[in-house]
Amino acid sequence: MARAAPSRPVDVPEGPYPVLCTVDVVLLTLDAGALRVLLLRRDHPPYAGAWALPGGYIHPEEDVDARAAAFRVLRAKAGAESPYLEQLATFSGLARDPRGWSVAVAYYALVPSSLLPACEALPGMRWLSVDELPVLPFDHAEIVRTALERLRSKSMYSSLPVYLCGERFTLPQLQAAYEAVLGEKLNKVSFRRKMEEMAMLEPVEGVLHSGGAHRPAQLYQLKPSYRRNLSLLPRGL
Amino acid sequence: MARAAPSRPVDVPEGPYPVLCTVDVVLLTLDAGALRVLLLRRDHPPYAGAWALPGGYIHPEEDVDARAAAFRVLRAKAGAESPYLEQLATFSGLARDPRGWSVAVAYYALVPSSLLPACEALPGMRWLSVDELPVLPFDHAEIVRTALERLRSKSMYSSLPVYLCGERFTLPQLQAAYEAVLGEKLNKVSFRRKMEEMAMLEPVEGVLHSGGAHRPAQLYQLKPSYRRNLSLLPRGL
Repeated sequence: MARAAPSRPVDVPEGPYPVLCTVDVVLLTLDAGALRVLLLRRDHPPYAGAWALPGGYIHPEEDVDARAAAFRVLRAKAGAESPYLEQLATFSGLARDPRGWSVAVAYYALVPSSLLPACEALPGMRWLSVDELPVLPFDHAEIVRTALERLRSKSMYSSLPVYLCGERFTLPQLQAAYEAVLGEKLNKVSFRRKMEEMAMLEPVEGVLHSGGAHRPAQLYQLKPSYRRNLSLLPRGL
Repeated sequence: MARAAPSRPVDVPEGPYPVLCTVDVVLLTLDAGALRVLLLRRDHPPYAGAWALPGGYIHPEEDVDARAAAFRVLRAKAGAESPYLEQLATFSGLARDPRGWSVAVAYYALVPSSLLPACEALPGMRWLSVDELPVLPFDHAEIVRTALERLRSKSMYSSLPVYLCGERFTLPQLQAAYEAVLGEKLNKVSFRRKMEEMAMLEPVEGVLHSGGAHRPAQLYQLKPSYRRNLSLLPRGL
């Protein structure tokens, strides 16, 4: 950084310069042990026929803000009503879209696979393992990569992977969600201590999960105060 | 989240709906032990005469992307050439600007006060302590609050406050920068161990800092590989 005198008067009126604004959403779920991202087949140019992230223009007449636009896009294009959703970052510039200079406010969202049967069957929709993605149009590969980095780093310090589980889950199911996100096995004893430290779970009284060859396991759910808010781990997993 | 069939065909062409796009920058420095933010007096409506964050429209003809627009705004309006700068979040909607539905890509930037003498003297510019800000127009108070939260949480786990120091600094000066950001005193021994753990500093050979009543202290600088990249602390301060 070098010293330089301001090159023109402060705050002379200018513009406006309207710009194309879109939202793009990385919607993630966990299915058969794999973290999967929703892709939709594009029906029109640019990149007609390519698989891409759900997205669309912001509708100023309809959307309160960009977050509302992201929820509208998920509802309209993926049938997903209100998953956990966070702003990821904004991607912008002349190079990212052949239609011209554009701004894409990107979000990432998590949804349990148990809530997605209606979507699975639709044509033009695919849930692909994040390890087996095709070449993506625009800068969607970079957006997905950024979302996975955010999900992984945040999962080290919070309850975020809970939103990949259904409303009720066992501790082994929750541990499997953390392991799928982080891409590594976790120690069971240490994992359970960290979940206790976060204090976000409560047992579902009187209900046990009876699955497979194991004895019935306790089911848990999020305490009401954590259903829309993350619980944080100051020292990480 | 409930199941719902998508309400319209996927990817029917629509729009475009051009939107006003701006960048806003929270430029922070450290002066006389206080964290300060740059405000500029607005010369024209809306909010003429109010003190606000440096910002401006994105210029699609001139800016490669929003980040380039943020650097251009800092250079033109604050004379700041290339401080450490990161995207913060995007603020959007109908309510935030009386001119209409808008998208503001917000950035935060850090600069050592030693590099700012040319700016200090200019009319229409003030560096205010973050604890003594006036009422700000638009959603600038929320943008500043978000920037301070980000700066504080990131400083717990990285070398970020280094960018508030000059090119060369002593360990007590660096500790003072961390303390000003975090708003608390740090233990000297533990602080120095953490700085060693991050391995981003190198002594400036043959140069000592002689200030005040203390004996000359070793000067340090960032190793070249950390001059534009943060060093991370996996377990925090």
